[in-house]
Amino acid sequence: MHYLDHAATTPVLPEVKDLMLAYLGDDFGNPSSVHSFGRKAREAVEVARERFAQAVGTSPAEIIFTGGGTEADNLALKGAAEKLAGNGRHLIVSAFEHHGVLDSAHYLERHGFEVTICPVERSGHVDPARLAGLVRSGTTLVSVMTVNNEIGTIQDLGMISAAVKSANPHTLVHTDAVQALGNIPIDLHAWNVDLAAFSGHKIGGPKGVGACFIRAGVPVEAVIHGGGHEKGLRSGTLNVPGIAALGLAAEVAAKEVYEKNERLGAMKARLLDGVTRIVPDVVINGSLEDRVAGNLNICIPGTEGETLLLLLDQAGFACSSGSACQSGALDPSHVLLAIGTPRELAQGSLRFSLGRASTDEDVDALLASLPEIVRRARKVA
Amino acid sequence: MHYLDHAATTPVLPEVKDLMLAYLGDDFGNPSSVHSFGRKAREAVEVARERFAQAVGTSPAEIIFTGGGTEADNLALKGAAEKLAGNGRHLIVSAFEHHGVLDSAHYLERHGFEVTICPVERSGHVDPARLAGLVRSGTTLVSVMTVNNEIGTIQDLGMISAAVKSANPHTLVHTDAVQALGNIPIDLHAWNVDLAAFSGHKIGGPKGVGACFIRAGVPVEAVIHGGGHEKGLRSGTLNVPGIAALGLAAEVAAKEVYEKNERLGAMKARLLDGVTRIVPDVVINGSLEDRVAGNLNICIPGTEGETLLLLLDQAGFACSSGSACQSGALDPSHVLLAIGTPRELAQGSLRFSLGRASTDEDVDALLASLPEIVRRARKVA
Repeated sequence: MHYLDHAATTPVLPEVKDLMLAYLGDDFGNPSSVHSFGRKAREAVEVARERFAQAVGTSPAEIIFTGGGTEADNLALKGAAEKLAGNGRHLIVSAFEHHGVLDSAHYLERHGFEVTICPVERSGHVDPARLAGLVRSGTTLVSVMTVNNEIGTIQDLGMISAAVKSANPHTLVHTDAVQALGNIPIDLHAWNVDLAAFSGHKIGGPKGVGACFIRAGVPVEAVIHGGGHEKGLRSGTLNVPGIAALGLAAEVAAKEVYEKNERLGAMKARLLDGVTRIVPDVVINGSLEDRVAGNLNICIPGTEGETLLLLLDQAGFACSSGSACQSGALDPSHVLLAIGTPRELAQGSLRFSLGRASTDEDVDALLASLPEIVRRARKVA
Repeated sequence: MHYLDHAATTPVLPEVKDLMLAYLGDDFGNPSSVHSFGRKAREAVEVARERFAQAVGTSPAEIIFTGGGTEADNLALKGAAEKLAGNGRHLIVSAFEHHGVLDSAHYLERHGFEVTICPVERSGHVDPARLAGLVRSGTTLVSVMTVNNEIGTIQDLGMISAAVKSANPHTLVHTDAVQALGNIPIDLHAWNVDLAAFSGHKIGGPKGVGACFIRAGVPVEAVIHGGGHEKGLRSGTLNVPGIAALGLAAEVAAKEVYEKNERLGAMKARLLDGVTRIVPDVVINGSLEDRVAGNLNICIPGTEGETLLLLLDQAGFACSSGSACQSGALDPSHVLLAIGTPRELAQGSLRFSLGRASTDEDVDALLASLPEIVRRARKVA
């Protein structure tokens, strides 16, 4: 099998798995326990917090560990919106946010908040000036994802934050950075954002763990209440093996990002070149500028994504149509619709996402099989 | 080291760790993916759901996987309270509930709900008649934990549910069963409860995973919104290794419960006998009837729990004062206060919780060291 779906999830790095095993083994303590088992676990959590903070350009005290990226998005959006409701009840989210953001915003809408959807340019960019034009005196939070999970577009969060804050200095900026870590260098302090969401399993860590950056001084209400863990912002026994793994995976991701991107960039160029040759009428979704190195998202006119996926799977290739984050969805991707892709064309989208484990051989094998797969998919449709 | 703190957390069972390793290795797919990696992951989740449902006496479709027990309590309480707000805004929780329940109730109190705290008897029992007497026409939910995490008292949930529902057939019954699974046989359908919370790491599974039982037809709003996983009740990529582990751990826990209890019951009898001999004025917290086999919770007059813990730790014994679930709390246990323990005495509490890995040798070693530890703790205080 050739795995070309790293934006859906990644294999756990061997060194990360080894670290987890220690905390799934003899060092199994509960970090809230006073005794030595507890202290060892607590130490692992704090080492991970330092590693993670370093990887994303924050202080360790600004990192709250969660059960995943979606939970971190919920904490940032609902948590800040609730705490700041006295200042205003207006939020802005971009049209192609992850559903962890969109559905949190919709939930808030059902509870007396007003949500404005900021349109996205055809290139996949959020225009900072257009966004800032939507900010009002009662706008407490704006959310724009650093890297889109389907088309890989990279936003300039520094520009976005500056534009938003010049329109209203009290408006918080949240970014879902789940697809950014390991794919671009991250410096949250330099970008001047207030909140950010991360996930472990997209960066060679395990599923079931994530992190929320909450800038010092930003008020947030918990989403999960209980024993007061993580400064009362995320109660529940800490997932020590997962957190230790997340810390190490983030460190590795940040360290390897330049080298990895060089390698994946060359690989994607070959993939793009081959696909364009095989499918001359292929549509590339989103600009090829400001895009993570491993992402290629295309529409093949006259095909359905579902059919393409199944044929590719039978031929030994794992990739996706839309994202894997929307469980069982059959609608055309909201991301492609947001960048102006016609509904019928959007049905035939394919996302290839190369990652750390990808090789030239994966690309060669795909290009060798693609002509026959496209022919059969067109016949079915 | 002698680990006598199984109510805080348990070592991961070897067979459970082995199962996790498969999904931390080659079978790393995202269960929402269409391709074969995804299908394999999805299969693991559904096998786990069947195993878990079987272990607790429900249908698989009634099990929602979460990031832990506290999150499951939040989902049950907040989720049901919100959905049923049209019927009434009154909840009842027992005075010694886990903080995942208590703090969810307090959160709801800050959002227009009324919460009644049901007192607990000195024995550690919740009196069904007393509880039912608090139920009103607008009471939408009652929460009583199956097994208390500090003193190990087992409630008769069948009786509680019957009493509550005879007072108001529309009132839902939730139970935090985190400390029950593996310690007593569980049959949620027979008990006629509507909601229940479970955790992985208390039963030989990993940290960072739990489950919420939601009886078919019971309306619950999600706490974490996003891609619509778990029927829209808990969004976020499923923690496949953790969920697979939880399913297997629950199966083992349910299968071994009788044999384990026989063994631990004899061990605790020896421990209790020795402690009573060494500390003649020892106070046993909670009734010894209706109590899980491995739990012993005592107060040693004239000592402080913190001092006892540190001395025990130095001597090689891991146990706790209060519970590990309240991060860094120094106040006397709300559980001991709820059963009428004087505040000063409650400061000197110790919880021993024997588990699957406990041996007679652990008990012998503890009894050999205890006289000197008590002497020194009394000298410090």
